[in-house]
Amino acid sequence: MNKAEKNVQRDYKKGYPSPSLQRLPLYLRQLKLYQREGVEKASCTRIAQDLGLISVQVRKDLSMTGIAGRPKVGYNIDELISRIESFLGWDKQRKAVLVGAGALGGAILGYAGFVEHGLSICAAFDVDENKIGTSIRSCPVYSLDELERFVEQNQIVIGIITVPQSVAQFVTDKMVKAGIRAIWNYSPVRLSVPSNVVCETVQLSSSFAVLSSKVKSMLAEERKTGPA
Amino acid sequence: MNKAEKNVQRDYKKGYPSPSLQRLPLYLRQLKLYQREGVEKASCTRIAQDLGLISVQVRKDLSMTGIAGRPKVGYNIDELISRIESFLGWDKQRKAVLVGAGALGGAILGYAGFVEHGLSICAAFDVDENKIGTSIRSCPVYSLDELERFVEQNQIVIGIITVPQSVAQFVTDKMVKAGIRAIWNYSPVRLSVPSNVVCETVQLSSSFAVLSSKVKSMLAEERKTGPA
Repeated sequence: MNKAEKNVQRDYKKGYPSPSLQRLPLYLRQLKLYQREGVEKASCTRIAQDLGLISVQVRKDLSMTGIAGRPKVGYNIDELISRIESFLGWDKQRKAVLVGAGALGGAILGYAGFVEHGLSICAAFDVDENKIGTSIRSCPVYSLDELERFVEQNQIVIGIITVPQSVAQFVTDKMVKAGIRAIWNYSPVRLSVPSNVVCETVQLSSSFAVLSSKVKSMLAEERKTGPA
Repeated sequence: MNKAEKNVQRDYKKGYPSPSLQRLPLYLRQLKLYQREGVEKASCTRIAQDLGLISVQVRKDLSMTGIAGRPKVGYNIDELISRIESFLGWDKQRKAVLVGAGALGGAILGYAGFVEHGLSICAAFDVDENKIGTSIRSCPVYSLDELERFVEQNQIVIGIITVPQSVAQFVTDKMVKAGIRAIWNYSPVRLSVPSNVVCETVQLSSSFAVLSSKVKSMLAEERKTGPA
């Protein structure tokens, strides 16, 4: 086994499967919908049905949080919400900075949903003189030269990267040097980080690959059988 | 088995597992990197190593495209690239429209990578009088009232939704009525579409859930053993 495979295996042992983790926000949204409707309990079967999933998968995903549903009764919705939020650490606030105050950076600063997940973006950084000193959606924009000082003084854990891919590794190295421990990468490039820093890349192309495959299957099916 | 579960099962039968589909763009990027470096063949083991995956998984994912690697030699890189692109339909251009010409819409229009995937965004639509008649990254912005006519006249297949979640279903219904067959949804809401329309939702929160879980595990580990 090579070193990369060893690392992956260690992650598998320590961590949880990404597809299951990725579904937790879907459950959370559905559970909060039930909550607003005044529903107090929900079974795996109902959650699965409302989200278009299979109930065995739902039970398995939710068991990561340590909760057990009661047969014939289901989960207590308030408890399940707080279990998921605590499991993800979304019940606490985590401070973040964002580097790259362009269109994508602005979209992320404007995305209200992240506040609910405990993400507090304290400042944005850019190299564009026209942006430095302004604020975007009430978030101040500073010069990239200020990053290290700001991260240290404010004990920032998370760095969000929304710069062009040509400078993404440069910004990553700057973040790591400043003491950032977790990088949320929106640039379409694989970043190198030391082993004491975690990194997660948002793959917009991955979602488009799923859509593309669905479109292709649908159109191929229709050529065979005529439109639905 | 209820109706939702039946639908899921039908999709499973027809389609490919999403996690595998989601990895195809990663392979494609890595393979194009090899190509630029003048590498002609690559084994599963090497691809797995360079992407931090396990080789069994790589072989399984790539077998979706119908390619078979040769033992001790690996895949021919040019062939593998064209297999993946053709599997996803990325070797052909697909015309799309985008509704919601705000910060997120602008970021997507500016994302050059999608052109490589055959995605051609022909027009954006909005209700904001200040945006209608302008263009964003050389894409014209029209009034939402024009959507139906434009989609029909230009035989648009894909609709991209970058509006606030409160109006996302309204825009979806308008797209479906206009004849859109595939919806790529960036709003954090589950959309209802008829069975002859496919829909894929980009879950930014899902990626943040994975990052959050990694951060939490890392910090918990350090509290036990001290920093790495």
